[in-house]
Amino acid sequence: MKMKAAVLGATGMVGQRFVKMLSENDWFDIECIAASKRTAGTRYGDNDLGFEYPDDILDMTIAETSKNILKEYDIDIAFSALPADVAGQVEAELAEKIAVSTNSAAHRMDADVPLLIPEVNPEHLGLIDLQRKKGWNGCLVTNPNCSTIMLVMTLKPLMDAFGIKDVKVATMQAVSGAGFTGVSSMAILDNVIPYIGKEEQKMEREPKKLLGSFSNDAVSFATFGMTALCTRVPVIDGHTESVFIELERDATEEEFTEALRSFRGIPQDRNLPSAPKRPIELRDIPQPRMHRDLGNGMSVTAGRIVKVAPRTFKYVTMGHNTIRGAVGASILNAELLKELEYL
Amino acid sequence: MKMKAAVLGATGMVGQRFVKMLSENDWFDIECIAASKRTAGTRYGDNDLGFEYPDDILDMTIAETSKNILKEYDIDIAFSALPADVAGQVEAELAEKIAVSTNSAAHRMDADVPLLIPEVNPEHLGLIDLQRKKGWNGCLVTNPNCSTIMLVMTLKPLMDAFGIKDVKVATMQAVSGAGFTGVSSMAILDNVIPYIGKEEQKMEREPKKLLGSFSNDAVSFATFGMTALCTRVPVIDGHTESVFIELERDATEEEFTEALRSFRGIPQDRNLPSAPKRPIELRDIPQPRMHRDLGNGMSVTAGRIVKVAPRTFKYVTMGHNTIRGAVGASILNAELLKELEYL
Amino acid sequence: MKMKAAVLGATGMVGQRFVKMLSENDWFDIECIAASKRTAGTRYGDNDLGFEYPDDILDMTIAETSKNILKEYDIDIAFSALPADVAGQVEAELAEKIAVSTNSAAHRMDADVPLLIPEVNPEHLGLIDLQRKKGWNGCLVTNPNCSTIMLVMTLKPLMDAFGIKDVKVATMQAVSGAGFTGVSSMAILDNVIPYIGKEEQKMEREPKKLLGSFSNDAVSFATFGMTALCTRVPVIDGHTESVFIELERDATEEEFTEALRSFRGIPQDRNLPSAPKRPIELRDIPQPRMHRDLGNGMSVTAGRIVKVAPRTFKYVTMGHNTIRGAVGASILNAELLKELEYL
Amino acid sequence: MKMKAAVLGATGMVGQRFVKMLSENDWFDIECIAASKRTAGTRYGDNDLGFEYPDDILDMTIAETSKNILKEYDIDIAFSALPADVAGQVEAELAEKIAVSTNSAAHRMDADVPLLIPEVNPEHLGLIDLQRKKGWNGCLVTNPNCSTIMLVMTLKPLMDAFGIKDVKVATMQAVSGAGFTGVSSMAILDNVIPYIGKEEQKMEREPKKLLGSFSNDAVSFATFGMTALCTRVPVIDGHTESVFIELERDATEEEFTEALRSFRGIPQDRNLPSAPKRPIELRDIPQPRMHRDLGNGMSVTAGRIVKVAPRTFKYVTMGHNTIRGAVGASILNAELLKELEYL
Repeated sequence: MKMKAAVLGATGMVGQRFVKMLSENDWFDIECIAASKRTAGTRYGDNDLGFEYPDDILDMTIAETSKNILKEYDIDIAFSALPADVAGQVEAELAEKIAVSTNSAAHRMDADVPLLIPEVNPEHLGLIDLQRKKGWNGCLVTNPNCSTIMLVMTLKPLMDAFGIKDVKVATMQAVSGAGFTGVSSMAILDNVIPYIGKEEQKMEREPKKLLGSFSNDAVSFATFGMTALCTRVPVIDGHTESVFIELERDATEEEFTEALRSFRGIPQDRNLPSAPKRPIELRDIPQPRMHRDLGNGMSVTAGRIVKVAPRTFKYVTMGHNTIRGAVGASILNAELLKELEYL
Repeated sequence: MKMKAAVLGATGMVGQRFVKMLSENDWFDIECIAASKRTAGTRYGDNDLGFEYPDDILDMTIAETSKNILKEYDIDIAFSALPADVAGQVEAELAEKIAVSTNSAAHRMDADVPLLIPEVNPEHLGLIDLQRKKGWNGCLVTNPNCSTIMLVMTLKPLMDAFGIKDVKVATMQAVSGAGFTGVSSMAILDNVIPYIGKEEQKMEREPKKLLGSFSNDAVSFATFGMTALCTRVPVIDGHTESVFIELERDATEEEFTEALRSFRGIPQDRNLPSAPKRPIELRDIPQPRMHRDLGNGMSVTAGRIVKVAPRTFKYVTMGHNTIRGAVGASILNAELLKELEYL
Repeated sequence: MKMKAAVLGATGMVGQRFVKMLSENDWFDIECIAASKRTAGTRYGDNDLGFEYPDDILDMTIAETSKNILKEYDIDIAFSALPADVAGQVEAELAEKIAVSTNSAAHRMDADVPLLIPEVNPEHLGLIDLQRKKGWNGCLVTNPNCSTIMLVMTLKPLMDAFGIKDVKVATMQAVSGAGFTGVSSMAILDNVIPYIGKEEQKMEREPKKLLGSFSNDAVSFATFGMTALCTRVPVIDGHTESVFIELERDATEEEFTEALRSFRGIPQDRNLPSAPKRPIELRDIPQPRMHRDLGNGMSVTAGRIVKVAPRTFKYVTMGHNTIRGAVGASILNAELLKELEYL
Repeated sequence: MKMKAAVLGATGMVGQRFVKMLSENDWFDIECIAASKRTAGTRYGDNDLGFEYPDDILDMTIAETSKNILKEYDIDIAFSALPADVAGQVEAELAEKIAVSTNSAAHRMDADVPLLIPEVNPEHLGLIDLQRKKGWNGCLVTNPNCSTIMLVMTLKPLMDAFGIKDVKVATMQAVSGAGFTGVSSMAILDNVIPYIGKEEQKMEREPKKLLGSFSNDAVSFATFGMTALCTRVPVIDGHTESVFIELERDATEEEFTEALRSFRGIPQDRNLPSAPKRPIELRDIPQPRMHRDLGNGMSVTAGRIVKVAPRTFKYVTMGHNTIRGAVGASILNAELLKELEYL
């Protein structure tokens, strides 16, 4: 039997993709579509939508996002695409009653909230015990920033195999990461913009929580050096990242490559519905338009691996920012919650 | 009185820009337009040209590129946009008689050939004495690869002020760098391509010659670490580079910025015709479409300067790859030759 | 039991898509992958491919395109993506023995060769009787030029309902229509190019054969006025066309729209594997990136219908040029051959 | 001595270009920079500007747009880049005292306001007599919509030479026409959008006023058929238009071409500062990136001229939408006012 899901912030670009992907998911049924007061009460299909949906979805009436949706709808889990300023309160209120899987940044760095990539740090779900102790019957899990995910998916197997001392990453990020109206065409056509508000801070902070160790009900952050320089490029979907990494222990190019190639996690072992067969696909030249849809957008593609000095490598990682980097990430998090019986 | 110039390889994209820029230069007159056998004998204006030219240029008949042009034309200097495989022999033969300023890679790393950026290493022109000793009456100077120039223009003042220990650079390079047909639209629309053939080797090698010290008739290469990861992006003109740099001596962000801002060289002191007033323009967010034409395409734009750790900074540098990075570079080299009476 | 298929010209962009779509088709199995002498003998997967394929396809060895493939392979039908100059002879030779469904232009206007869109003029398959009379055991069918198909799919129901007096069409065509290296990025970024070699002639000629009447073993061409002005735009896939049409008999906007909406043909009636449920999808604003994949790329999307004067309308039609406009067109033609027992 | 100018709406994209072009104009000095209440009082250079300006311009303090600027500044003429809803009242109030040259649509179709292209209908300035009669000491002239101008510049010589019966035009318009944030990159990358709000109405109406005859203090609208279908394309600057035209009297392709080539008007005869030497440049394939800057952006480029039937031609016209199509148009209008002593 399918779980009953609500989508919060369902009219924005991320929210629309939540509705799209959940409408095709085997474990979840969309029970409630919620958005801001502005569109609440309207038929979902009467809004300006960028995907094609089945008729029953189009015919749903939008609820107003608030904890009150629990009075009107029977919901097991809420998927949140809320803006960070709104997300903070509503997500916490809902988590008192039901599970919340969010793409929002509001609670990512909270001490008792797992910042989760199922292949990377499933053990951080132990933080939910802390949530339960403070009286929540539900729970709250978050996925990292889109550009963080493509990077950390490759850092995890490298850290396990060789240790990491320092990472410097220069990103080339798709315009969809800024939402539908986030980047004007006048700004980006025939151009790149080497600045994305608040992005570098997120990229420099989140990997250390994700790759931190969990013990005694807490995450001890990892301590490697982490520097990011983020750029917007005229690409629709797919963040590409040029990485310079210094390892703790030396490796050959072959060993480095093999660590990425053989990476697997619980999603693959348990065959979760949204899990890609291979979390990391290797290609000679990873490219967003060519490879962003590998694994239905859930695989990260890595390549251009070159050893440039002892313990020092350069390589490229790339992934679909609104699937593996946002919506698919949240859904896979929810699937892990269910698989591990937190839901 | 103007010097008489030949343009070699005048029908390619770089060659066309040579003809364009020289047709507007105060020190040089185009006396001879040369290209391969395929177009030799045709009227220049009957070829497929991407710029608008004055009628007397359009009416010139293309000569075949070879040392024989010296028999037919009275030439003081040849500007070369030849492909590397052709350039090697012809440029050397011409340098026996006249000055040659080339954008080609063929002789860049020759021990007796200056790899020159006038603001950076004018003293390397001392290598011309070696050329004279082997019997050349002319001389040969080369400019670096386009992506090298944008970087080294910023490295020079930083090296002088603080010393450089290590540089890691991730480029985002315009399609014009590959020539008119070099990058197909199917390859680059809605995409980035993190690979450019032979580019990373050039970027990792040339800066060490450019920033090397000259004494006893030889260049001692600089020894800092230098790693590049090069990407093609859907931009017409303007290479943007994300730089991570480790200095020898610490600096504040203000000192770092001031070193770039106050950078000047002989071209500025002597007011050479193609010299930009400011070799480095500072902007909050350097961007190719917005800033590539600053200083008539001869200024490099830097910005996004952030200190990330003691002695370690990230910043962005950007410049017009076919002007400051190629054609304008060669012309400024020739202007320096003339100013310093090598011509 | 599946039919055995060969793909001719399998390494080009259209050929690669033939292999991709046939590898997923229910009625055909790929038995032979053929290309020019240059790549013959190589493993298909060792060529530069733009799609992901199953391993058994990647492991096939490329045959050289010629009638001799019939000696080595047991083939029921050949799909041809050959360039027009090569296609002429080989396709005719193969048609003596087997069915040939081609996207090439070589034989489109031959008097005894059907220029076929299954929804539009299936009765033209009667021309195959002429082919049989000259001794062919196989047969040869062609699909129209990509930009013709998007237009004629909409003209057919309009002609049936109201008659057509004159059509003027201005196209905006995707770069994929020129093949992988056909349009350089330097030519098309931040640009449109209002010229496509030979395209306007094809668009002005082919619709009259497609919409001609078949009787007495011959097609009588339709006689309406037909003018095209063709432009290349920076779009990967999807040709968009602005149409001005003068009808023979007047209609309301509603009648005009309904004629398009209700259009169906044999592919829909017989439920052919590649047939879209709706040949024409109606949308307020047809757009290539948003709608090219409707009906798995086999639906044409029309909209912006406005009556501008009695009997005169403007509207927009758009379709996926390498699926409905090329590869999918040829495959649907083959499915119709099979359904009607010509195969 | 230079005239003193105000720029209204100076912080928007069109307004910024007004300030840029006027800062380089020989007849006008910028005395006042005005914008909405939101930015009034700020230093112009502290706003987000897309051009480089001289320091004295950057240091100007922004006034609030209203008729009150006349109390504080000594102004001869106001250039207006106001949005249509604001423009209506302010422009009329200012015209009571001074000359107003506006790019806004508010008054374009007013019976006593010239809709002016200096090369096309300078005699319509006679309408200013009507304005004077109602008590205005100043005057108000408007330029047409950007897409209208590129078309009518070519229609004028054709009408004079052959008469015009019907025009059908399909446009491909640059994103700058919608203002800096008008078209999001998510909407237009790898896409075209065949709809622009209100654009087709303007294009179908304005040419008839522009090409109307002036007598007895009134413009009699031209009566040819005029249909437009407007599309947005991923081009920064430059509107390209595919035109199908039916003439009253027949012409050869040579005569048709010669009519365009030899077109001249008062701006050329009197050598106005912003006038291009040739109002229409002919090129084989007019293209926005290649030709939009011809004549400093004030020339329209035409080409692809083909006679398709007796009295019927297709051709392409293209021009820089924010220069010839907006800002340059208003400035040339003002120069004509001055030349003809209305100012």
